[in-house]
Amino acid sequence: MAEAGAGLSGVIAGRSAIATVGKAGRGLRYRGYAIKELASGACFEEVAYLLIHGGLPAAAEFAAYRGRLRACRALPEAVRDIVQRLPDHAHPMDVLRTGCSALGAVAPVEEPAALVDAADTLLAQLPAVIGCWRRADAGDEAGSHAAHTLAQLGAGPATPAAERTLDVAMTLYAEHEFNASTFAARTAASTLTDFHSAVTAAIGTLRGPLHGGANEAALDLIRSFDDPDAAEAGVMRLLAEKRLIMGFGHRVYRGGDPRSPIIEACAERLVAEHGGGDLLAIARRIEAVMRREKGLFPNLDFYSAVVFHQLGIEQRLFTPVFVIARLAGWAAHVIEQIADNKIIRPVAEYVGPGDRPFVSLAER
Amino acid sequence: MAEAGAGLSGVIAGRSAIATVGKAGRGLRYRGYAIKELASGACFEEVAYLLIHGGLPAAAEFAAYRGRLRACRALPEAVRDIVQRLPDHAHPMDVLRTGCSALGAVAPVEEPAALVDAADTLLAQLPAVIGCWRRADAGDEAGSHAAHTLAQLGAGPATPAAERTLDVAMTLYAEHEFNASTFAARTAASTLTDFHSAVTAAIGTLRGPLHGGANEAALDLIRSFDDPDAAEAGVMRLLAEKRLIMGFGHRVYRGGDPRSPIIEACAERLVAEHGGGDLLAIARRIEAVMRREKGLFPNLDFYSAVVFHQLGIEQRLFTPVFVIARLAGWAAHVIEQIADNKIIRPVAEYVGPGDRPFVSLAER
Repeated sequence: MAEAGAGLSGVIAGRSAIATVGKAGRGLRYRGYAIKELASGACFEEVAYLLIHGGLPAAAEFAAYRGRLRACRALPEAVRDIVQRLPDHAHPMDVLRTGCSALGAVAPVEEPAALVDAADTLLAQLPAVIGCWRRADAGDEAGSHAAHTLAQLGAGPATPAAERTLDVAMTLYAEHEFNASTFAARTAASTLTDFHSAVTAAIGTLRGPLHGGANEAALDLIRSFDDPDAAEAGVMRLLAEKRLIMGFGHRVYRGGDPRSPIIEACAERLVAEHGGGDLLAIARRIEAVMRREKGLFPNLDFYSAVVFHQLGIEQRLFTPVFVIARLAGWAAHVIEQIADNKIIRPVAEYVGPGDRPFVSLAER
Repeated sequence: MAEAGAGLSGVIAGRSAIATVGKAGRGLRYRGYAIKELASGACFEEVAYLLIHGGLPAAAEFAAYRGRLRACRALPEAVRDIVQRLPDHAHPMDVLRTGCSALGAVAPVEEPAALVDAADTLLAQLPAVIGCWRRADAGDEAGSHAAHTLAQLGAGPATPAAERTLDVAMTLYAEHEFNASTFAARTAASTLTDFHSAVTAAIGTLRGPLHGGANEAALDLIRSFDDPDAAEAGVMRLLAEKRLIMGFGHRVYRGGDPRSPIIEACAERLVAEHGGGDLLAIARRIEAVMRREKGLFPNLDFYSAVVFHQLGIEQRLFTPVFVIARLAGWAAHVIEQIADNKIIRPVAEYVGPGDRPFVSLAER
C-alpha cells in the first residue's frame, strides 16, 4: 500500500494529455502550446476549443464555434427564475454553484457522447448566471466571450483594451492540471455522474480562499496601503507576524509562475486607459518585498487582482471570472476522465479510537 | 515523486479517526464501535451524533439532539421556492444537489466553529428538500429522523417495522471512510470552502452509477426476473456476456461486506409485514450464483434494493436515502479535514503532445 503525504502533494493521481505545469524546461503548456504564445496569439474561444476539442480550430471551425457559443448564451426560464430567487447578498460563487446545479437539473447530461456539446453549452451559459442574478440585461448576442462576460459582470467601461485584457486573463486561468477544483471534478466524474455534478463540485471547491479566493484577498492586501512605502512597511509587519500573504508562491512552481509576467504586462498596458497606476506601483513594491524577504514570487492571482480592479469588475466577482475561464479546463478533464475511467477511491490511515464495546443508551 | 495507480486505489490520502473499513480482524467500525452493534443497538440519530460530535450521546444529550433535529427540519422560504421550480421529471439527486447548494447560498457557513451546527441543521433539512419538491406536506414535527425521512419520501406504509428498518439501513449507509463522495467533500473542504459546497460536491459525486446508483441498478436486475430459476439462468447469461452486475464486490472488502448480512436480515424480517418474499428469494439466488461463479459477495447496495422496495420507497429515491444517511459521515469528514487542513492537490503524469509552436488563426 503506497503511503501518501497529506494533501497528495507530489502524488501522481492519474494521467492527462491536457496540460503540463511547471516541468523543468517546459513550463505551462496547454496540449503542447506554450502559455505565452497562446496568451499573445489566441483568443479565449480558441483556447477553450483547444482544451475541450483537443486541437486549435481552423478558421471556419473557429467562426462556427464562436457562433455556437453566442447562440447558447440564454438560460432556460426555470433556471432564470431560480437564480433570481437567490438573495442579492449571496456569495456570487454560491450563485454560480446553484445556477450550474439547476442547469443540470433542467437538462442533465450523462452520455459520454454528449459531453463535448454540454461543455460548450455550459461555457456559453455561465456568464449569464451572474448577469441574471444581477438583473443585468442579458440580451447581447454579439461580441466575444470576454466581451459578453464583461457585460454580464457589469464591468466597465468595455473598451477594446478591456475586452482583450480579460480575454488574456481568461486564457491564463483556463487550465492548470490537477489543481483542487479540477481534481474534485475528476473525482465526481469518476463515478460516471453527470456533467453538471462534476462542474458543480469544481465550483464549490474553487470557492475556497486557499484556491479561487486568492485574487480577492490579494486586492484587499494591495488596497490596504496608500503608497509603495506604506506597502513596504506593512508587508514587513505582516511577515514579522507570520501572516499568510495571498497571491505568492505555488505548490507546483518552484522558480516562478509563468503566468505572472503576462498578467503584470496586461496591468501595465491598461494603466494608460483605465488608470490603476498607483495600485500597480503598490503591487510591484509588495512583490519586491516578498522576493527579497521570503524568496517568494507572485502567482497568477496577484496581478490579476490589479487587472480585474482596473477593468471595473467588482471584487466579489473575481472568483466567478476564474470559474468562467476554468470551466474550459474542467470540461476537458471530465471528458478525459470519462474516456478512460476508474473510480477515484483512495484509503485513509486510521488514527481513531481502538475497538470499544457498544453501550446502550439506557446504560450511558 | 510517488507513483499512484489510477483511481488512487490503495493509496493513503490522509488520516482519519472516523471509521475503519475492512481491516483484517476489525471490520467496519464507526469511531471504534462495530457496525453490527450500532445497527442493532443504536438509532440513526445516535450514530449521526457519534460521527459528527465524536462520541455516543448520553440520554439527556440524545433527547436534546433529537429535539434539535426536529426543530430544524423546515426549509427557508427562498429554498422552498427554488426547489419547487425544479421540473417534476428532474433526477432526484439533481434536486438534492440544487437544494443543498441553495441552502448554502441563503445561509453560507464558513467558520470552522460553526461547522458542527451546520452539519446538524443540514442533516435535519435534507429530507424536506425531496418532500418539498414532491409537494408533500412537510408539516410533521414529531418522530424519528427515519420516520420523517419515510414521510418526506412518500414511502409507506410507515409501520414501526418500516421505521426501524430504514433506521438500520441509514446507520449502515452513514459512513464509509474515503469513498469517492467523501473524498470529493474533503477535497472541496481542503480549500477552506464553505460547508454546503463540500456537501454539494459529495452529492454530485454520489449520483454516479458506480457509486450511489448501485442500489437502483440492483433493483432493476432483481425485478427483471420472475422467479429464482429465471434469475439463475439470466445471471449466467449476463456473466457469459461479461456484463457488469451491480451490487457485488467492493474495492476495500475482500471477503465480504459486513453490512450485507445485516441488511439481508432486515429484508427477511420485513417479509411478514410488507411482503417482498418473492423478490428476496430471487435476490438470494442471484447471490448464490455470483458466489459460485465469480466468488463475489453482495455489498450493502444489493439487499438494500430489496429493503427499500419493500418499504415502498420509489426506486428513483434510493440514492437520495443514501445521501440523507451519508451526510452524517460527510459532515464528520469535512469537520475533520478543516481541523488539520492541507489543500488536496495531486499531480498528473503528462501523456499529451510534445512541445509545438503556435500557429495563428490566419495561418491555420
